[in-house]
Amino acid sequence: MRIVTLAGGTGAAKLLRGLDALVPQRTLTIVGNTGDDALIWGLHVSPDLDTVCYTLGGWIDEDRGWGLRGETFRTFGEMVRFGEPTWFNLGDRDLATHLHRTRLLREGQTLTEVTAKIAQDLDVSHAVLPMSDQSVRTCVRGPDGWLGFQEYFVREKTQVEVVEVDYVGANAALPAPGVVEAIASAHAVIVCPSNPITSIGPILSVPGIARALEATDAVVLAVSPIVGGQAVSGPAGRLMAACGFEVSALGVASAYAPWLDILLVDNQDAALTPRIEAAGLRTIVTETVMRGREGEIALARRALEALA
Amino acid sequence: MRIVTLAGGTGAAKLLRGLDALVPQRTLTIVGNTGDDALIWGLHVSPDLDTVCYTLGGWIDEDRGWGLRGETFRTFGEMVRFGEPTWFNLGDRDLATHLHRTRLLREGQTLTEVTAKIAQDLDVSHAVLPMSDQSVRTCVRGPDGWLGFQEYFVREKTQVEVVEVDYVGANAALPAPGVVEAIASAHAVIVCPSNPITSIGPILSVPGIARALEATDAVVLAVSPIVGGQAVSGPAGRLMAACGFEVSALGVASAYAPWLDILLVDNQDAALTPRIEAAGLRTIVTETVMRGREGEIALARRALEALA
Repeated sequence: MRIVTLAGGTGAAKLLRGLDALVPQRTLTIVGNTGDDALIWGLHVSPDLDTVCYTLGGWIDEDRGWGLRGETFRTFGEMVRFGEPTWFNLGDRDLATHLHRTRLLREGQTLTEVTAKIAQDLDVSHAVLPMSDQSVRTCVRGPDGWLGFQEYFVREKTQVEVVEVDYVGANAALPAPGVVEAIASAHAVIVCPSNPITSIGPILSVPGIARALEATDAVVLAVSPIVGGQAVSGPAGRLMAACGFEVSALGVASAYAPWLDILLVDNQDAALTPRIEAAGLRTIVTETVMRGREGEIALARRALEALA
Repeated sequence: MRIVTLAGGTGAAKLLRGLDALVPQRTLTIVGNTGDDALIWGLHVSPDLDTVCYTLGGWIDEDRGWGLRGETFRTFGEMVRFGEPTWFNLGDRDLATHLHRTRLLREGQTLTEVTAKIAQDLDVSHAVLPMSDQSVRTCVRGPDGWLGFQEYFVREKTQVEVVEVDYVGANAALPAPGVVEAIASAHAVIVCPSNPITSIGPILSVPGIARALEATDAVVLAVSPIVGGQAVSGPAGRLMAACGFEVSALGVASAYAPWLDILLVDNQDAALTPRIEAAGLRTIVTETVMRGREGEIALARRALEALA
C-alpha cells in the first residue's frame, strides 16, 4: 500500500506518528508544507518539515510541541548583542538542522534532496518531500500591511486581524519532483488535520497539486482540524473565516470539495454530516482529538479502515 | 597618538590587551589576519579577528585561549548526525558571531563593515580592520598536497611536514579600506608577536601593505615571537624553517627587514642583537613572554617606551 499524506506541523505530525505505528516502513510519502519556511539569522528554517521529521524520528520535545528534547538556547542568548531578531526561538541542537540544510541549499542541492537527507539522518522511515523546491511564502495581510507567516504566527502571536492570505511565489512554483507522481500512483491520500489555510492551502497553491488530487484514482481522505466550531489548536478558525469559509467541518469540506472523497469529522460534529454528505462526500464520525500515543494510533487506524 | 598594529591570534591579542590598558580608546587601529578564515558549516569564521575582539572585549576563555568563556557545544554535538565536519570546534555562543557575520556578508556588506560592527558590539574600544575584504587563504603544502590553514592547524594539529606556504588569492586582493591610510598616518606601527608566516605573512602578502610599511614615517616596531630558538606557541618555528628563515629573532628580523625599525627580542636572545643591529635595526632586549595581565602590560609599556 502506498499512501500520500499532505502535512502541516503539529497535528499532522501526531497523525503521522500514529500511521507510522501501523504501516510498514516506506509506506508513506509525506508532502510537507513549506509556505511557512523562513530565513532566520540567514538560515533556511522549515518548521513544518522539521516538526514532522523530529516527531517521526522520536526527537521532538513533546511538552512544547516543537523543537528538540533537552534543548538549550545559548546561541539565541548571544544574538541580542548583535541586534539579530530574537522573536523566533532557535535552539542550539535545532540549529544544526538549519545550518546543515542551509549549507546544502547554498551548495546547489534542491530542498527535495536536502529534505530527504535530513529525514534519513533523523531516522524517519518514510519519504518526506517538500511541496515545492521553489519558494512559496504564506503571507497574511493585517491592518498594517503584509506579514510573513512566522511574523504573524510567532512574532505577533496571531494577535493581528487577518483580512487576506496570499501564497507569494506560488504561480511560479512547481510541485517538488515526485509529488504529482506519488499522488497519481498512490492507493490513498490522507490530508492531515492541519490548518486548511496556512498548512494545506500552500500545498494546494502549487500549480498541479490540486489537479493531481482531482485526477488520482486514490481515495482521498481528510481529517477535519475544526472540532465544534473551532480549531483544535492554532489560528485555523480565524484564518478560515478571513478566507470566507465557515469555521466548521462543513467549511473544511467546502475547501477540499473539488477532490475530497471522505472527511473524518469529530463526534461533536456529527450533526453536520448530512450537509457534508449532501455535497457528495462520505463522512466518518469519530474521536479526532488525538490524546497521547493511543489517540494518534486510534485516529490513524480509523483513517486506514476508512480507506480499506 | 595613532598606532597601527598588525595582529594574528592569541599572542597578538595578549599584547593588544596590554596596550589597551595603557592608551586611550580609539588609539589603536588593529589590522587583523584573515588568511586563516574558513567556511565551517557554511559559516564565515574569522578566528584571528574573533580572538582579538573576544580578548579586548573581555569575553575570551582564558584557559583555552580561544572562544568564549562558559561555552557549550550543543550544536556541534548534533553535527555528527548530519555528517558535517566536526574537527573544528564551534561553540554555541561563538556561533552567534559567525551567524551574524555570515548573514551580513551574504547581504552584501564588506568584511571591513562587518568586522567594525562586531568589534563594536563586543565592546572593543579600538578600530579593528581585516587585512583585506577579498579572500586570501593561507595554504600549506605537505607530503600529500595542499591544506587550508585550519585543516593543517586544527584538523591535522600541525602534524604534517610543511614544504611550502602560499597565500591563495593574495595577488588579486586589495588592502581593506583604511589599512594603507592608517599605516601612512600613524605615529607608530607595532607588529605583534604572531607567527611571521601564517599570521603576519598573509597581511604582508596583500599587495600594497608591505609598501605602505616601507613608505610610512611611522616608527615600525615588532616583537619577536621566537624566543630561544623556538616559537612561544604554535608552529611558527617549523613554518619559518619551511620558508627558509632561521628559527630565531634574527630570522624574524630578516623576514621584516625591508620596513622594520625596532625589534623587541627576549632576554634569552640578547646574544643575537649584534647580528640584528648589523642589519640596520635597533633592538630592545626585554622579557617578551607575557605572563598574566602584568606581563602583557609590561611588554606593551616596553614597546610604547621604545616608540616614544
